[in-house]
Amino acid sequence: MTIAVDIDKSIEKSSWIRKMFEQGALLKARHGADAVFDFSLGNPNLPPPESFQNALETVALQKDSRAHGYMPNTGFPFVREAIAQTLKREQGVDVTADDIVVTCGAAGGLNVVLKSLLNPGEEVLVPRPFFVEYAFYAQNHGGVLKSVQTCRNFDLDIDALESAITPATRVVLINSPNNPTGRIYTASLLGSLGEILGRKSREYGSVIYLVSDEPYRKIVFDGADVPPVFEFYPNSIVVTSHSKDISLPGERIGYIALNPGAEYLDKLRQATALCNRILGFVNAPALMQRILPMIQGATVDVEAYQRKRDILCDALGAAGYSFTKPSGAFYLFPESPIEDDVKFVQALQEELILTVPGSGFGGPGHFRIAFCVDDETISRAIPGFERALKRFC
Amino acid sequence: MTIAVDIDKSIEKSSWIRKMFEQGALLKARHGADAVFDFSLGNPNLPPPESFQNALETVALQKDSRAHGYMPNTGFPFVREAIAQTLKREQGVDVTADDIVVTCGAAGGLNVVLKSLLNPGEEVLVPRPFFVEYAFYAQNHGGVLKSVQTCRNFDLDIDALESAITPATRVVLINSPNNPTGRIYTASLLGSLGEILGRKSREYGSVIYLVSDEPYRKIVFDGADVPPVFEFYPNSIVVTSHSKDISLPGERIGYIALNPGAEYLDKLRQATALCNRILGFVNAPALMQRILPMIQGATVDVEAYQRKRDILCDALGAAGYSFTKPSGAFYLFPESPIEDDVKFVQALQEELILTVPGSGFGGPGHFRIAFCVDDETISRAIPGFERALKRFC
Repeated sequence: MTIAVDIDKSIEKSSWIRKMFEQGALLKARHGADAVFDFSLGNPNLPPPESFQNALETVALQKDSRAHGYMPNTGFPFVREAIAQTLKREQGVDVTADDIVVTCGAAGGLNVVLKSLLNPGEEVLVPRPFFVEYAFYAQNHGGVLKSVQTCRNFDLDIDALESAITPATRVVLINSPNNPTGRIYTASLLGSLGEILGRKSREYGSVIYLVSDEPYRKIVFDGADVPPVFEFYPNSIVVTSHSKDISLPGERIGYIALNPGAEYLDKLRQATALCNRILGFVNAPALMQRILPMIQGATVDVEAYQRKRDILCDALGAAGYSFTKPSGAFYLFPESPIEDDVKFVQALQEELILTVPGSGFGGPGHFRIAFCVDDETISRAIPGFERALKRFC
Repeated sequence: MTIAVDIDKSIEKSSWIRKMFEQGALLKARHGADAVFDFSLGNPNLPPPESFQNALETVALQKDSRAHGYMPNTGFPFVREAIAQTLKREQGVDVTADDIVVTCGAAGGLNVVLKSLLNPGEEVLVPRPFFVEYAFYAQNHGGVLKSVQTCRNFDLDIDALESAITPATRVVLINSPNNPTGRIYTASLLGSLGEILGRKSREYGSVIYLVSDEPYRKIVFDGADVPPVFEFYPNSIVVTSHSKDISLPGERIGYIALNPGAEYLDKLRQATALCNRILGFVNAPALMQRILPMIQGATVDVEAYQRKRDILCDALGAAGYSFTKPSGAFYLFPESPIEDDVKFVQALQEELILTVPGSGFGGPGHFRIAFCVDDETISRAIPGFERALKRFC
């Protein structure tokens, strides 16, 4: 035995992704970073809002030596209170500080929630395409990820979801606005989903939880609105982070919000607090926590992302690419002109354009463009996108 | 099904601890926080060193908006380089930046290491008494914690450790200076341990890893020295944090250091990077990372902890308590005058003194006093300690 067998396999399986990134790094080394158009990562290029910088300076200068100490595993009470006030307005239900667990980003929050809920072999249903890490998060806690088809425009396919639910289903995990499609699920779809989950939970005598991963909630275009899941299903949990709306992905700060109407609310509170502790997160970083009450409601310049989307969609549409225009987040998920999306992504690499094959998201025949880059990077890449398409059409 | 069965059981099992803490909170509410002597938590009372505050202000004022973005999952390269330089001096071997993974504290680091190493059912051997969270960390990744007796003075019992090793043993986990005993393992003991682990690994044809959890390395008394494990066994991994030496437990910042002489070094590097990502840590908080190069070698005022130890040990010794004087960390682990340590801890509670029963650490018949409190709290609590002892002797 060298290392854990599962981990060894995961390293092997993801070696193609590593090779692709190495290939990208090689291109940058050979042609200069400026000559390579890197759309491969969801690392926001917009700066955090000014209120964040002000809050950071305020907190750093407070010289409160106990401020870096332990607090309850769920987070500082005054921070949870500020988040609860926001959630109350956003979700339209009486969320309290006791329903909030501040976490090391949404990735941390999702692991805490899945650890709290999953028994060995239980299933996490997720509409595909989906954020690739979800599969790991389910496996980490003995669960199994099962992906379910969506409609052509990436909307929830309610019938397909209903058919996929079995007595082993413990969690339905949605992500709206979606990575990689930018789709926002409507109130009507969430209503149908809530109805099914309620019915199936009763049928199987066992709660199926709706977990909503919402780091892109604030990044929406054309005045779109992200309907609050708490209204549509009581046994629901929101997980989010400030990685995208405040551009703080490296700081690992986010939270879990429990629906105060959940059937086993008290158990959920205790379980998420315990799991935040025992998974080794212990608590979300203290300094970033203390900034949160000062920046509730702040966001990066969302219009800038909308402008980037428009530049990209207008040009790729004109070039002949097929896609569903994203309503939020900062990803475009066009169809690959050939079935083999890995091959098409390689063709784009020859044009010094880095993207990610849809296969990596359970969405083969597509590829993901992360447009959280400078406007100029987008404009300058367009001719390459056009040439790559022409090679196959 | 309400929540995960295992988690539900863990909540039940730890309900006595919760009750004890609730009882403590009740005492504080009834008698005033100042009248209650709280020795129950390892939350450092000393402020971080001045160099930390200076570094924090420098980093906060840098206004570098990309500084809060993603970096490699293992951490900023310049941060890992600074840590590697420190480790080189400390461990006496050529640690490089590639051998370092910056983590969300030692708790995060231990979970990353155990996830990287453990196959289902494999064992983590730990000398008892031990930090209670270790059992959860092993279980999180399908492993099993097996505790091994120590000598009367809490030194490693090398023969007992050797007898406990089986083909299922994947990790031996040590913690020196130790929580809850304050014991430091000598070079000679570590040499014997390394020899056994090498021999058993060869015998079973499978690497047994030595994982050394060292958050208290810098908190040592009377000029004591903590010998470097890397010298004594190649397949060793150090995990540490700045929770105690810099008093930053709420900030969740620490690191994993791989022994560059490890047999499967490249696999270990890949596995720990992957696991830091997929467990949902993603990376250690960016801002705290950037502070680390500026505070290498800094510590809190360790002499203050030594003074607290001396006040406490002198008084409890005079009162008739039996204990092994700690050489490091900030815990004393005296014998309970009666077998039932929970009952004795309750007797101390009646004196408004809060401590933790040794049973919670796999060390029944003892109790833990965390002396990271004001000197005055210690002095004022002494009469209560004396009265509680007299009730039973």
